[in-house]
Amino acid sequence: MPRLAYVNGRFIPHASAFVHIEDRGYQFADAVYEVVAVQDGAFVDLPGHLERLRYSLGELRIRPPLGLPALTLIMHDLVRRNRIRDGSLYLQITRGVAPRDFKFPTATKSAIVMTTRRRPTAPVRPPADGVAVVTVPELRWARRDIKSTSLLAQVLAKQQAAEAGAFEAWMVDPDGFVTEGASSNAWIVDRNGVLVTRQADRSILKGVTGNAIAGLAAGRGLEIERRKFSVAEALNAREAFLTSATTFCVPVTRIDLQPVGDGRPGPVATALGRHYLDYAGRQEPPFGWAP
Amino acid sequence: MPRLAYVNGRFIPHASAFVHIEDRGYQFADAVYEVVAVQDGAFVDLPGHLERLRYSLGELRIRPPLGLPALTLIMHDLVRRNRIRDGSLYLQITRGVAPRDFKFPTATKSAIVMTTRRRPTAPVRPPADGVAVVTVPELRWARRDIKSTSLLAQVLAKQQAAEAGAFEAWMVDPDGFVTEGASSNAWIVDRNGVLVTRQADRSILKGVTGNAIAGLAAGRGLEIERRKFSVAEALNAREAFLTSATTFCVPVTRIDLQPVGDGRPGPVATALGRHYLDYAGRQEPPFGWAP
Repeated sequence: MPRLAYVNGRFIPHASAFVHIEDRGYQFADAVYEVVAVQDGAFVDLPGHLERLRYSLGELRIRPPLGLPALTLIMHDLVRRNRIRDGSLYLQITRGVAPRDFKFPTATKSAIVMTTRRRPTAPVRPPADGVAVVTVPELRWARRDIKSTSLLAQVLAKQQAAEAGAFEAWMVDPDGFVTEGASSNAWIVDRNGVLVTRQADRSILKGVTGNAIAGLAAGRGLEIERRKFSVAEALNAREAFLTSATTFCVPVTRIDLQPVGDGRPGPVATALGRHYLDYAGRQEPPFGWAP
Repeated sequence: MPRLAYVNGRFIPHASAFVHIEDRGYQFADAVYEVVAVQDGAFVDLPGHLERLRYSLGELRIRPPLGLPALTLIMHDLVRRNRIRDGSLYLQITRGVAPRDFKFPTATKSAIVMTTRRRPTAPVRPPADGVAVVTVPELRWARRDIKSTSLLAQVLAKQQAAEAGAFEAWMVDPDGFVTEGASSNAWIVDRNGVLVTRQADRSILKGVTGNAIAGLAAGRGLEIERRKFSVAEALNAREAFLTSATTFCVPVTRIDLQPVGDGRPGPVATALGRHYLDYAGRQEPPFGWAP
């Protein structure tokens, strides 16, 4: 069986999965997406991802192509058909196909695409000594709370990180404060042991994994402060880490080649990564799927 | 004969023109584009568009899928096959198809798509009493000098304009200065008769049509100042107008429901529109095409 993709109502071999050239996702980035991890055959933090999807669609006034129950059923079905036990599902919804014109078309059905990916270990294991990040100027548009496919700034940031041998790029606003990573949220553990991450306004994407990890941390009595932090503060912090749906919780040990704290993965980030992995393994499995 | 599109080396009926769901244009807006007017069977300002295409590709380090001579030949061929005498050609180049990953893929061939559109009259005639614009906050990313398909902010701006019954949206930066229109450059004729348009740095797209019109204006002894102007200055100006490849030069007579000058199309914009139409009609016709 070839790997399947889901495209506008049909399961199709991945290699043959196409969309029209006038799909507004292709011409205007008029589209939103989500990436959901699959762990032991179950989606991780699915309600959070569906809620954010609903929010992104609502902010752009893109009509959901399906109700959430039907959408969830198809997601499960694709994971089942592709026999994904550990991996991820990518889901993209666009405003649909219409003759090219900036303003919203009136009678166009939204388009939907899903793909899955398998991963050998779950989650992708970061190096044991943590990862390096580089800082880059924040170039993105003003509505970063919408998880849109207008991702060109993130592409450039990730490329810059890759060329510097780093795992992630942290974007820094004109006032010197970190907004977030190109595809993750940014965190520090400050000198007092408080977890600090930027407040989720329009300047960053509300992290589903980050929120779940905040919940786990709070449940363990850790204090969390949602506020901006600077690169200097991150370098002087006890620890730094990043969170995302595909990498979970990863200690950051270097920023622009300088060590964070003692340059080794900190106990808080390490413990939270372990707790989240446990939590991810306890998600409700999809219908009809026995891992 | 159905209308054809050009997709990665082949001329294909428009309705059957598809790209893969993992084309980076679809998933990341990792793509650039140009729209070139066709007037009396010839491309208008083709060298300017090709030069800007080369610049956009270079800034994003996307390899051109074809040399410029081959590209130009195909553009001409598509226009000829589709029998476009007056209309436009849309050209999009993406970084190509690769498994989803933000950073640049290493061994991927750029993808290219072209479509054409016919228009009944050339150019699309604006209303005789000029057009209205609305102002919207500037939401776009910091590299507006690159003509990328990261166009979601422009989509939202154009939709806002359409809902307000306006022809275009002028985007206003946090300091109160107009950057440009959602798909056009913004101009005023100030109290001294000087043409004013924003300097082409990274805050706006360098307008090919606007530059040609500036050349025509300079040739007629008009003074041109490239600097920022505010909405208040535009309202107090003698005239305002916009320029773009598909609309050419259009008088703006209302901004946010308030009249510009005496509220009627001004003599400078009207004359420049006529001059540009003449100029557009004198372009070199494509190879082998007798209009």
